[in-house]
Amino acid sequence: MEVKLIQLPNMPAEACEDAARMCYDSADKKKDGSAKKLLNAIVSKGHNSVLEFADATFEITGVSRALLAQFTRHRHLSFNVRSQRYVKEDVAKYVTPPNMSHDAIGVFEDAMSNAWDSYRELLSHGVKAEDARFVLPNACQTQLHVKGSLRAWKEWLPVRLDRAAQWEIRAMANKIEGLLMEAVPEVFFKTEK
Amino acid sequence: MEVKLIQLPNMPAEACEDAARMCYDSADKKKDGSAKKLLNAIVSKGHNSVLEFADATFEITGVSRALLAQFTRHRHLSFNVRSQRYVKEDVAKYVTPPNMSHDAIGVFEDAMSNAWDSYRELLSHGVKAEDARFVLPNACQTQLHVKGSLRAWKEWLPVRLDRAAQWEIRAMANKIEGLLMEAVPEVFFKTEK
Amino acid sequence: MEVKLIQLPNMPAEACEDAARMCYDSADKKKDGSAKKLLNAIVSKGHNSVLEFADATFEITGVSRALLAQFTRHRHLSFNVRSQRYVKEDVAKYVTPPNMSHDAIGVFEDAMSNAWDSYRELLSHGVKAEDARFVLPNACQTQLHVKGSLRAWKEWLPVRLDRAAQWEIRAMANKIEGLLMEAVPEVFFKTEK
Amino acid sequence: MEVKLIQLPNMPAEACEDAARMCYDSADKKKDGSAKKLLNAIVSKGHNSVLEFADATFEITGVSRALLAQFTRHRHLSFNVRSQRYVKEDVAKYVTPPNMSHDAIGVFEDAMSNAWDSYRELLSHGVKAEDARFVLPNACQTQLHVKGSLRAWKEWLPVRLDRAAQWEIRAMANKIEGLLMEAVPEVFFKTEK
Repeated sequence: MEVKLIQLPNMPAEACEDAARMCYDSADKKKDGSAKKLLNAIVSKGHNSVLEFADATFEITGVSRALLAQFTRHRHLSFNVRSQRYVKEDVAKYVTPPNMSHDAIGVFEDAMSNAWDSYRELLSHGVKAEDARFVLPNACQTQLHVKGSLRAWKEWLPVRLDRAAQWEIRAMANKIEGLLMEAVPEVFFKTEK
Repeated sequence: MEVKLIQLPNMPAEACEDAARMCYDSADKKKDGSAKKLLNAIVSKGHNSVLEFADATFEITGVSRALLAQFTRHRHLSFNVRSQRYVKEDVAKYVTPPNMSHDAIGVFEDAMSNAWDSYRELLSHGVKAEDARFVLPNACQTQLHVKGSLRAWKEWLPVRLDRAAQWEIRAMANKIEGLLMEAVPEVFFKTEK
Repeated sequence: MEVKLIQLPNMPAEACEDAARMCYDSADKKKDGSAKKLLNAIVSKGHNSVLEFADATFEITGVSRALLAQFTRHRHLSFNVRSQRYVKEDVAKYVTPPNMSHDAIGVFEDAMSNAWDSYRELLSHGVKAEDARFVLPNACQTQLHVKGSLRAWKEWLPVRLDRAAQWEIRAMANKIEGLLMEAVPEVFFKTEK
Repeated sequence: MEVKLIQLPNMPAEACEDAARMCYDSADKKKDGSAKKLLNAIVSKGHNSVLEFADATFEITGVSRALLAQFTRHRHLSFNVRSQRYVKEDVAKYVTPPNMSHDAIGVFEDAMSNAWDSYRELLSHGVKAEDARFVLPNACQTQLHVKGSLRAWKEWLPVRLDRAAQWEIRAMANKIEGLLMEAVPEVFFKTEK
């Protein structure tokens, strides 16, 4: 799994600060370091709408379609995902769940070989990619661009960093959180778990 | 695939009509048959918000996870779906793409057997359902409840009835359209394709 | 201000329970009284999506346009509102803020008379309702239908029951909460403030 | 009315192109001028989701609260607006509808004077700004930051450029369209009216 932050305004916290200062007609009080203080005061009251004024886009590769099914349920994020209808998945690329026994890994690897052999054989019989993919497993790797406002990410992170979250999406959430803490420290801190 | 309409207000068109008449202060003009005329006049101008005042819920069974991945991208619909994390898929239930050659069908059937054999073997090795599902194919059947306002369905239908839509979701859209045309004829007519 | 619950499914909690049981394939465990227990267990984990499967519509009259400006910012609610573009507001109907001194009330009443006198005079000069309304005050009464899923209401209530909320929208939230506690006691309890 | 484009990614069309190329695994086909061709081909099929990958923020001043009430109904836009609860509107600033007769303008101007006199008098009686604003008219000027993805703007423009749209919001839509046509010509062209 690789997660890259590929798009963010130059001064994301300031963009949110400027929006907030519209409400209070307090543009004249903006100064060095005022963004963090203002945003925290507002966000701690639950007024997250100010965080809608900056967006962060990530490029994510090497995650499973099982993760994708969970990820795309978040309606406030925007997705463009590698299509199994239009792109042929000739090469077997998949995500292996961790912590399986040696024997289980053997079963898993065979399952992957069988699935991709069947996929390629279907293509060779003239079956279209959009139908051949019916044999591809949930483990199949995908890649995507995903965009959300700082508000969307702020509200998404605790859901998928939760202990009850599935391991793969939780690992991805950890990477996303790390990148946001580095890029927008005025808004993102270590989430209590 | 089975599609059942399981929830709808008693008088869905009238619920929308009542909301519309709020805007124009014209509750006194409501009479037998006025809903259809009013709603069509309003909706033809693109003022679809009146159609948000009645919701329709469907129970859908026997569709593939490949369909689900497309369906859940529609943010204005609400979903509750059979979970592959919490429910064991011991029994092989899958959707077979139509129009495959005899040989291709053989390949496909073998792929399904192999996938479910691997799934059950992983479970027997103590792998959790949420990890064993990584070998399950896109063809795996699922079932769900899906709810949308009449507006959501009205705007969703042309997207998935389109010729370019994938065959399975298009077939489902046809069934949904049929049920809505029968249940709310004031709002749903045959979509031009 | 009057708030009436005008639309709700016959068995709203059961509609949500049925959706939830889809996830867990546990329809066979449904029985008398199971909805409350199941929904509370799920909702306490933050899985509010099950509450999207029943919707409640209210008819609200006698609230101010100042309230409306706050209310319509909630994107998960659906609104149809008396239009000041299409309906003439000939009769002065307005909301008076509570707790004003005797003198302040005098000033306020005069302001209302002046505003409606100007409004009617503009109409008599041939100005269209959509332009004449520019002189109407925030206090002007309006009426509306508003619909939300039980999830939308559950997440909206604490925001507008908060001590920091404006008095009029808070009073309305109290009425809405009361009606929902009576109609869907499996889901709505007294909110801690 | 003043409309300024204050935030946009450096290469908005390319951000959308990159997202689209994820779907088709065609990053290698990106070249000078390819964004426009690709985006138009995709958007003409109604696949607007690629336009969610760049956002534009405007600062808007000198518009009426009557306009605001219409504008904030668009759920895909993000708003931060000058607050009448927290900011005192001591100075009379308002929008005058065009095309009124000389006499009507006189009536209108008097109405504005009366409204602001009452507002200031209520404040002097110790009434809080959030209650004194009940006498302020729909004509009262406001200012705001508004953000939307290129998709949100693309879908919003025809609604408010429509002949049936109210004159003030239509004038604002014209300015927004002009700025977007200049800044992202790959996506925005003159809308047919």
